[in-house]
Amino acid sequence: MKIIETVPEMKIVRFKLKEPVGFVPTMGYLHKGHLSLVRKAKAENKSVVVSIYVNPTQFGPKEDLSKYPRDLQRDLAMLEKEGTEIVFFPSDKEMYPEGYDTWVTADKLTKPLEGDSRPTHFRGVTTIAAKLFNIVQPTNAYFGQKDAQQALVIKKMATDLNMDLEVIVCPTVREPDGLAMSSRNVYLNPEQRKSAPVLYKSLLLAKRLYAEGKKDTEKIRGEMAALIQKEPLANIEYISIANPATLEELQTIKKSALVSMAVKYGNTRLIDNMMLGE
Amino acid sequence: MKIIETVPEMKIVRFKLKEPVGFVPTMGYLHKGHLSLVRKAKAENKSVVVSIYVNPTQFGPKEDLSKYPRDLQRDLAMLEKEGTEIVFFPSDKEMYPEGYDTWVTADKLTKPLEGDSRPTHFRGVTTIAAKLFNIVQPTNAYFGQKDAQQALVIKKMATDLNMDLEVIVCPTVREPDGLAMSSRNVYLNPEQRKSAPVLYKSLLLAKRLYAEGKKDTEKIRGEMAALIQKEPLANIEYISIANPATLEELQTIKKSALVSMAVKYGNTRLIDNMMLGE
Repeated sequence: MKIIETVPEMKIVRFKLKEPVGFVPTMGYLHKGHLSLVRKAKAENKSVVVSIYVNPTQFGPKEDLSKYPRDLQRDLAMLEKEGTEIVFFPSDKEMYPEGYDTWVTADKLTKPLEGDSRPTHFRGVTTIAAKLFNIVQPTNAYFGQKDAQQALVIKKMATDLNMDLEVIVCPTVREPDGLAMSSRNVYLNPEQRKSAPVLYKSLLLAKRLYAEGKKDTEKIRGEMAALIQKEPLANIEYISIANPATLEELQTIKKSALVSMAVKYGNTRLIDNMMLGE
Repeated sequence: MKIIETVPEMKIVRFKLKEPVGFVPTMGYLHKGHLSLVRKAKAENKSVVVSIYVNPTQFGPKEDLSKYPRDLQRDLAMLEKEGTEIVFFPSDKEMYPEGYDTWVTADKLTKPLEGDSRPTHFRGVTTIAAKLFNIVQPTNAYFGQKDAQQALVIKKMATDLNMDLEVIVCPTVREPDGLAMSSRNVYLNPEQRKSAPVLYKSLLLAKRLYAEGKKDTEKIRGEMAALIQKEPLANIEYISIANPATLEELQTIKKSALVSMAVKYGNTRLIDNMMLGE
């Protein structure tokens, strides 16, 4: 496994890789969700590049950039075991040299949900994704459904800018009790951790209500909120039932909906989502 | 010469082209300035792609999009004569399909000069350049020095986003009387056309003053403005003497400066520029 820290070296190495090239961009502190992306990339491509880069521009001024969990040695051991060929691990100076000043934005899709809570977040996400795509030039890039809006936004950017790659979205990987895998789960104290599966439980509730024929989103959201509010440590930031292509809020579910939520435990912000219908 | 109107066809044809691939993006209504770019691309690359696309997103709401001059047959004849292999001539629907929503912006460099007069202009320029670069995937892309700020902004974007191409800037081509070649010169009536070389004359004046040791930009600008104001049809929009890398206005010229200007004749806006020093 080769670890590359500079853009010029990554570009040189890239052109020696066998096609197709699968790419898994990560912020490190890997968990089984990331590894499921690496495995999928491995299965579908002749070469696999994984990037580890905690991208500062997608964190707000009051967010957890400095204390975002990092463990490079553990990450590398996990990637080695998966048979990863290339790990791209650039520095901030390499990605955002002095005077850096170009930004990629997807407009409407980034306004609601996560964008509403984190107004500069998606500008950072699309900018780093565009940069990494240009550096790695993958055939296929893999993202997790857990960050549903991120996956949609990156897909939109790649399509709109005529990028020459496929964005592939893979299912959320969960702990046995249903909590979606996330690097941020490490922030939870034992009590919070015990309570956190309520996010998934509320999604299952929405799924059941929909299966029973309930389509009024206000009612579904209300039942989900009531369930979560039984957990004294959980603070709902939003619960959304939206058009899965445009992210516009729905009053009634017709064919399909993306149910998504952000819930805070202390300072730790958890997100999760589920698709309803087809 | 092959004329291609869709993105998928352009992508297929591109991968059959011999490397390196030179690319000249234009808005059509070609003149000798464009042809000098095509010749340079031809001399430096094994294949040449020229695009003709009047990009709506770089025009302001009150600008000349609908009456921007167009003459496809003449353009194609000129490009055929130059030995161009591929002309990419997409429709608006092909470049900005319904729901298009992704924008590329270079921040500080786009604020002064043209950006100050045309606040949404450069967002359109960098967005279409990113799209065309992703579609054509050139080795080298050619731009004219006449649009000095545009060339700088596109260079900055390509560098910041780690694009895999060289942006090459070629000298301004002028009419025998010094007027910079521009598709918009066709708007000038005979009297305006006769007066318009005063832009170049004022640049030559700046050059002479600098050669004589004058470095105070207020004085140089003052003499330039006085010369232009002798022309009753000319209305100065701006005269700038700026750092050629950052476009920040200079009080004193040290090593080098970009002298640039916009002057209106009726509704026709002309720009020109010259580098002083090294």
